[in-house]
Amino acid sequence: MTPRVGYQGEPGAYSEAAVLEHFGGDVQPLPRASFDAVFDAVEREECEAGLIAIENSLAGSIHRNYDLLLRHNLWVVGEHYLPVHHCLIGLPGAALEGIRKVISHPQALAQCEGYLGRLGGVEVEPVYDTAGSVKMVREQGDSRLAAVASRRAAELYGMAVLAERIEDNPDNITRFLVIACQPNPGAVGIGGDKTTIVFTLDNQPGALFKALSVFALRNIDLTKIESRPLVGSPWEYLFYIDFAGSTEDPTTRRALSHLEEYATMLRVLGSYPRHR
Amino acid sequence: MTPRVGYQGEPGAYSEAAVLEHFGGDVQPLPRASFDAVFDAVEREECEAGLIAIENSLAGSIHRNYDLLLRHNLWVVGEHYLPVHHCLIGLPGAALEGIRKVISHPQALAQCEGYLGRLGGVEVEPVYDTAGSVKMVREQGDSRLAAVASRRAAELYGMAVLAERIEDNPDNITRFLVIACQPNPGAVGIGGDKTTIVFTLDNQPGALFKALSVFALRNIDLTKIESRPLVGSPWEYLFYIDFAGSTEDPTTRRALSHLEEYATMLRVLGSYPRHR
Repeated sequence: MTPRVGYQGEPGAYSEAAVLEHFGGDVQPLPRASFDAVFDAVEREECEAGLIAIENSLAGSIHRNYDLLLRHNLWVVGEHYLPVHHCLIGLPGAALEGIRKVISHPQALAQCEGYLGRLGGVEVEPVYDTAGSVKMVREQGDSRLAAVASRRAAELYGMAVLAERIEDNPDNITRFLVIACQPNPGAVGIGGDKTTIVFTLDNQPGALFKALSVFALRNIDLTKIESRPLVGSPWEYLFYIDFAGSTEDPTTRRALSHLEEYATMLRVLGSYPRHR
Repeated sequence: MTPRVGYQGEPGAYSEAAVLEHFGGDVQPLPRASFDAVFDAVEREECEAGLIAIENSLAGSIHRNYDLLLRHNLWVVGEHYLPVHHCLIGLPGAALEGIRKVISHPQALAQCEGYLGRLGGVEVEPVYDTAGSVKMVREQGDSRLAAVASRRAAELYGMAVLAERIEDNPDNITRFLVIACQPNPGAVGIGGDKTTIVFTLDNQPGALFKALSVFALRNIDLTKIESRPLVGSPWEYLFYIDFAGSTEDPTTRRALSHLEEYATMLRVLGSYPRHR
């Protein structure tokens, strides 16, 4: 049976493109209305894996998904980088000059902020999905309304591309994580893997410095650090760290066991092959 | 002349309450439609200061304002903590059971996610402001529509409070920063101040560890670290740090001069009295 992979959005969403690129087309992408619904679908085994956006090189982290990683008992088993090129999409026959309102996912709107500002007198309104916004333009049938989404979404819904590559910065890349019920079975070898962890620390001077020492003293390269509020303890934080190495490597295992000496909570979310 | 202080939102917004609390009522709050407009108003000297939300103890940082601090040439001169209590607000005579759609600022909706989910079958829609959402309920005159905002906003717009303290967590506190054209003139004494800085590092193993060492080796307490994408350099970051101490303290000055040895960019956003 073709494996099913859950993603957030409608057919034509960037997440769907990431699913198809990552798994080489030999999967059945399973659309879900929200990130929560993707986590739920994986947990209930309605699909073999899920793919969730975790960070964009311009707009930053998708915090909702950091929070959901903690709330669910799933494993990170892969990552995927997708270059993002946005189009302004309207009804067939609509003119760029006539556009008065632009709808899309808030991240997509943020990534085209400069372009949309230069259009002049155009109202922007966040909706839940990029491809979904194209569907809404078609349903509303208003030639003053446009969506920000992929060329593929325009084609899928029979709509017109009014402008292309409207993202403010050409270095617009979204990083996705692949989530599953079971951990990735093995390391791909020294330097080939990444690990994602989450931990909390006592709120005292030097606590984060000590935590980072377990990596620095072993020359382990951190690729990302993200802090999220620890709910119930105002101004204390959860730290999410990505680093080079697999939990199969003895050095990584020693670093994590050293971190346990300082951390009040430590959870390994998964080791997985680095996307090249 | 009464000093003017810019804030984001409509009269009745939580930011307006923070302005009045912080400055003791002896100021004229100046509503602005967006955070950008607050920064612009301070820069153009339409007001003597601005007050912007920077973090909530449940929902996390307001990244837009971190980005705007970097983009503008203003100083952080103060901070304020405001406990947030949300109400569900409808038309006079509306019944809680009849509510089908709830509008508010995305942060307010996120903070009442549990409560709104338990209402059952209620659609949520983000709008630009909490108090503005109350105004919209009044304008639309639909008794199935409700807003999430403060009790004061309900009173200002003559609307009904359908439920009170609907926030999921009682520890719901928003931290605001006060911004101005000139830095805060002086330190309030050892232990009485905080400083906010932003810096970038070379992307190499141990870089953040070295940067944090300048504080840890001097027993300087970090109260917050936030990373934001460095636009134009995918997967490199700007680090925003808050720490105990003023740039008037010799220890702080030595730490910052030590940090300059590692940082590729370092900017002090301001020293200011800690809010107690």
